[in-house]
Amino acid sequence: MASTIFIQTPFQSKSLNKSLNTHFVPSFKLPVSLSFKPRTAAFSKRVHIRAGLIEPDGGKLVDLHVSKPERELNKREAASLPKVKLTPIDVQWVHVLSEGWASPLTGFMRESEFLQTLHFNSLRLDDGSFVNMSVPIVLAIDDLQKASIGESNRVALLDSDDKLIAILTDIEIYKHPKEERIARTWGTTAPGLPYVEETITNAGNWLIGGDLEVIAPIKYNDGLDRFRLSPVELRKEFERRNADAVFAFQLRNPVHNGHALLMTDTRRRLLEMGYKNPILLLHPLGGYTKADDVPLSWRMKQHEKVLEDGVLDPETTVVSIFPSPMHYAGPTEVQWHAKARINAGANFYIVGRDPAGMGHPVEKRDLYDADHGKKVLSMAPGLERLNILPFRVAAYDNTQGKMAFFDPSRAQDFLFISGTKMRTLAKNKENPPAGFMCPGGWEVLVEYYASLTPSDNDRIPQPVAA
Amino acid sequence: MASTIFIQTPFQSKSLNKSLNTHFVPSFKLPVSLSFKPRTAAFSKRVHIRAGLIEPDGGKLVDLHVSKPERELNKREAASLPKVKLTPIDVQWVHVLSEGWASPLTGFMRESEFLQTLHFNSLRLDDGSFVNMSVPIVLAIDDLQKASIGESNRVALLDSDDKLIAILTDIEIYKHPKEERIARTWGTTAPGLPYVEETITNAGNWLIGGDLEVIAPIKYNDGLDRFRLSPVELRKEFERRNADAVFAFQLRNPVHNGHALLMTDTRRRLLEMGYKNPILLLHPLGGYTKADDVPLSWRMKQHEKVLEDGVLDPETTVVSIFPSPMHYAGPTEVQWHAKARINAGANFYIVGRDPAGMGHPVEKRDLYDADHGKKVLSMAPGLERLNILPFRVAAYDNTQGKMAFFDPSRAQDFLFISGTKMRTLAKNKENPPAGFMCPGGWEVLVEYYASLTPSDNDRIPQPVAA
Repeated sequence: MASTIFIQTPFQSKSLNKSLNTHFVPSFKLPVSLSFKPRTAAFSKRVHIRAGLIEPDGGKLVDLHVSKPERELNKREAASLPKVKLTPIDVQWVHVLSEGWASPLTGFMRESEFLQTLHFNSLRLDDGSFVNMSVPIVLAIDDLQKASIGESNRVALLDSDDKLIAILTDIEIYKHPKEERIARTWGTTAPGLPYVEETITNAGNWLIGGDLEVIAPIKYNDGLDRFRLSPVELRKEFERRNADAVFAFQLRNPVHNGHALLMTDTRRRLLEMGYKNPILLLHPLGGYTKADDVPLSWRMKQHEKVLEDGVLDPETTVVSIFPSPMHYAGPTEVQWHAKARINAGANFYIVGRDPAGMGHPVEKRDLYDADHGKKVLSMAPGLERLNILPFRVAAYDNTQGKMAFFDPSRAQDFLFISGTKMRTLAKNKENPPAGFMCPGGWEVLVEYYASLTPSDNDRIPQPVAA
Repeated sequence: MASTIFIQTPFQSKSLNKSLNTHFVPSFKLPVSLSFKPRTAAFSKRVHIRAGLIEPDGGKLVDLHVSKPERELNKREAASLPKVKLTPIDVQWVHVLSEGWASPLTGFMRESEFLQTLHFNSLRLDDGSFVNMSVPIVLAIDDLQKASIGESNRVALLDSDDKLIAILTDIEIYKHPKEERIARTWGTTAPGLPYVEETITNAGNWLIGGDLEVIAPIKYNDGLDRFRLSPVELRKEFERRNADAVFAFQLRNPVHNGHALLMTDTRRRLLEMGYKNPILLLHPLGGYTKADDVPLSWRMKQHEKVLEDGVLDPETTVVSIFPSPMHYAGPTEVQWHAKARINAGANFYIVGRDPAGMGHPVEKRDLYDADHGKKVLSMAPGLERLNILPFRVAAYDNTQGKMAFFDPSRAQDFLFISGTKMRTLAKNKENPPAGFMCPGGWEVLVEYYASLTPSDNDRIPQPVAA
């Protein structure tokens, strides 16, 4: 099984970035420190603890890659097919779909799936059960492209370099109701929503759905592909480590010690619950993010330092990149973030204040109520099997000189370090209070902000929120 | 059982409007023309045909009226409770809730129900099953009202005449996220949505949820109360008529012969399916409608004429008023319209083009895709037990001189009579093509438009769409 992973992932490839190859995980060099024991009677007494990883949505993980022989046939066929050019974000979605993060989806949504997503944030399966699906995964085309497709049932999807990415088959073209899509996904139509401006406003008036036949695994050749483990690969890694619980932490920002506290505390709680080997999936989002978020490459460097500095335990932590683009759609999107992690084998999901939220693009307030994310997540159809772990707020405790869970009974002892404060410190190469972030991680941030031009620096509001 | 109905409904009250008392239904004076037969072996062979009416959502109909002894206690208690004044539309919602149209809801939504409605159009019950609930049924209060409620757990709800309507108990006050509510309910935030402007834009920034204790059945004293049968009363009436199928037709406009064709054709199809006595619930919406809809009293007169003229068969038709206000929220609202009729005993629901839709308030197009309503309805969680009957488009067939189902193979024979065309004809006291609407019904329309001032007449765009 392990050998399969080594074949499928470019872990030992020549492009391996030395600086990221210490005990940064996933690392197959780590000794398996917890010996594997078959489940004993003691285990079976704890009825709530599952044997084996959580099942993926729909019962099995979708894999949309074609076999090698088909690959050549598809390439030849594609030459004569109508063609649609994908944006980089479209390619990210092909990646997401191809590896089964959105299982049981088998391609870009047809209208039935699109409407169910917009109205119900879930899809009904043939057996009557529901899986969660809260963000539309759709491909927009314009009138000209629609005309060029004509009556064809298959369309070749090319990247910006005209490389064949996939064939979309059994296609369905339907109207792209942009305003309604935006309103129902974001709960606002205010101008300035990053994903909307990037992918919807100027997109075509049609959506094209269908099943994907993906020619080859999507690679970005940015030195980080080896961290982009698929759900299959993650599941194998969790099994290799004998995980009896997997708790996922979605993030798109640098890790500070408040996050770390929360993750280590979660592990402690899971051990208390009787789990023997809870594994943390530290899962930074790797797809599109807005311009003022810290870029993936810098975040990965920062995460590496956090592990190097021992803030998180590499033996019980898997760091991998979640390939999805970011919607910033708050309570709607957090469901997607959670659902995708079920497919990767996580049965616990940590959710914080205002997940996937941002400031209102027009009004001076947060776009979403900070508590709605965790509430909606706990109610969402199709996520019943996932254990939601809402997190307590951490702040800098002056009496301890470290990040600690906020205690309202001695509020005066706590310092909330805002994103703006963080940014100002990092830009000015000043240090935050000792214990806020490990020094190595902080240095990466300072280095990142130093690398920006002054004009870039003017629009970096929130480097640290989860 | 019948006597119970006579007690509960003001059918024989003094306010009975003579002009509406012919064979207009529901009329208990009609001979029971279909003799009751116990279900025989022949019945049991038709496996898809239910014995008895469809179960209400949650298994039993909610009735939120207090008993007579409690009534007096509540009135005395109310004197010392914090008070919230209801708008007429709030009172309509109390009416809707009190009779169980929204079963299993027991009052204005708390935040958990509100969020589930916004995000999932459904509510999860304790047993894990879902009921549909697509429009928020909420009560808004402002900062002052919130302050006046303080820590009280019970609030007295008064109508505009300061009459005690209900006590709201075990209350929860939470933020009213107006923009998000509008966007997720209507799929747009464009200015000019009638229900939004009427009830949300100027409403308070808080919502108050809780269980209702309704002092007395809601009455409007407009001569039409006797047509406002509750779900319990409708169910009794269907049982009295030995209905083995009930098909509901929601409308907020005059009935033309295209509607009538569809309803009679539906009955024919149900008979073909093996039902012996399908009963039509012709169910005009009686709550808030926008200014340019034909008012309820005129619509009821028009419906009466349609029955008098024999266009619909009174023996197999029950006309009753659905007390809900109108959202004009298209695919979202049609679910509410259907769900409420399950609670009234309907197991078939007729859905047409663009149900609950309207023109986009700003752009020159329909707000919703005309097909989305029936698609969304057929996918909606919690409506699995309801048979959705999408309707074929009827148009005026010049070759037959009557309304007929549109046949695309001879499109040139058909005349689509738009709302605008209708309005112009009625305003000018001209007649539509013979066979478009029964003459008696048409006269009511002419009379209605004649009753309007010229300025009223300028804003009546759509008098006939379903």
